Amino acid sequence: MVTPEVAEIAIERIDGTRRESTRDRVVAEAPLQLRARSVPVATIMRTPGHDIELVRGLLHAEGITGSIAQVDVDAIEIDLEATVFVGRGLLASAACGVCGRVAIAYLELRAREVTADAIIDATTIASFPDALRAAQSVFAATGGLHAAGLFTIAGALVASREDVGRHNAVDKLVGWALDAKLDPARHALFLSGRLGYELVQKAIAFGVPIVAAVSAPSSLAVELAERFNVALVGFVRGERANIYAHGWRIR
Amino acid sequence: MVTPEVAEIAIERIDGTRRESTRDRVVAEAPLQLRARSVPVATIMRTPGHDIELVRGLLHAEGITGSIAQVDVDAIEIDLEATVFVGRGLLASAACGVCGRVAIAYLELRAREVTADAIIDATTIASFPDALRAAQSVFAATGGLHAAGLFTIAGALVASREDVGRHNAVDKLVGWALDAKLDPARHALFLSGRLGYELVQKAIAFGVPIVAAVSAPSSLAVELAERFNVALVGFVRGERANIYAHGWRIR
Repeated sequence: MVTPEVAEIAIERIDGTRRESTRDRVVAEAPLQLRARSVPVATIMRTPGHDIELVRGLLHAEGITGSIAQVDVDAIEIDLEATVFVGRGLLASAACGVCGRVAIAYLELRAREVTADAIIDATTIASFPDALRAAQSVFAATGGLHAAGLFTIAGALVASREDVGRHNAVDKLVGWALDAKLDPARHALFLSGRLGYELVQKAIAFGVPIVAAVSAPSSLAVELAERFNVALVGFVRGERANIYAHGWRIR
Repeated sequence: MVTPEVAEIAIERIDGTRRESTRDRVVAEAPLQLRARSVPVATIMRTPGHDIELVRGLLHAEGITGSIAQVDVDAIEIDLEATVFVGRGLLASAACGVCGRVAIAYLELRAREVTADAIIDATTIASFPDALRAAQSVFAATGGLHAAGLFTIAGALVASREDVGRHNAVDKLVGWALDAKLDPARHALFLSGRLGYELVQKAIAFGVPIVAAVSAPSSLAVELAERFNVALVGFVRGERANIYAHGWRIR
């Protein structure tokens, strides 16, 4: 069953030396624009559905109450002055976007397509989980952390970072790489968790041509990787993996 | 080994009918304040360590460059005008906080201690994962979703929501409960993932006395639950679970 919450896409499935084209379902992710009396005040990346409840719950947690109406499949109108939202961390970021396509256009203003011609062995990617886990001291102690690792395309772990927030782990790793003046073109980013829009956006802004993870990508993550020439690999487990974008980079 | 990234705390461990007091390690979570020429512009909840890299990576993803210096264990100074940050979603939310204690004080301005005297059976909590999974249609299809469920203290699943973002799943569920005028005092919140500060903060703002999850809590999540009279249960797997706060609510 394909619902508005699920998108069906073409993927390649790897299992040892086997590789086959198939179709798979990924969770839908799309921006929801919040408008305060028609003024855009925030954009939330979310799985479509139950949007009014989402905004009601979000405002409640922020101590804000106001009448909420869905004006569009991708927009919510709140009957409050926009000034109410200032200083609450809800203010617009990529707030120009009212649909996935616009969000991608917004990223295009800031990020370039990854032009590196890097190609990586599937067996190299298969080695990432164990290598990253071996480096995860805090995870081993607490079980509570997300980890991100940067590998050469030959498979050497260059650096890894852990954080309670998965975006933070990637920010720390990219921050380190910028300090170290590392060339992203010859490297792959590997993540312990899921692949959402923001993580792939950070990888593209950094310029890494290969992004892989233990778990599933979202629909918008796949779209972004496709658009910016980045190989996207999910469900890296043992000898298995799913390729969601730019499979030519995986040998 | 206890590092700055790990906090050691007292917990109770449940395994079937056995229950024992012990100590466990949780990942540290604490606010990092970002100041632009001394003006607070944002607070990031993060695991301490590699803070300058974190901010460098975050600014890079936002297309901002500027000199960064750590002025304090909980504060970073960026040599840019604060106005650069306006409209980037980086603006202060709980930005008054420069340490966990201040962040909790900030929440106290908006949320009340949960006064409900609800007590729940450990066996009821043990039934949550299967019940939530059975309701997770999108997760079953994609493997890419976080889920949140609201249960009565007798163990009936009242509602569940799924989203690519775990905060969104909780916001949707709370939004639904507010619409339905559900009394939070007689309910437990159960989450498919980890328990960070923001999720427990949302649970407290909603007023639910019992919060449980499949995975680990952070240090600040435990502190919040302790302070606001909420039972916090992690690693709910089979007949096992760890109680991190207010174990008197678990029978």
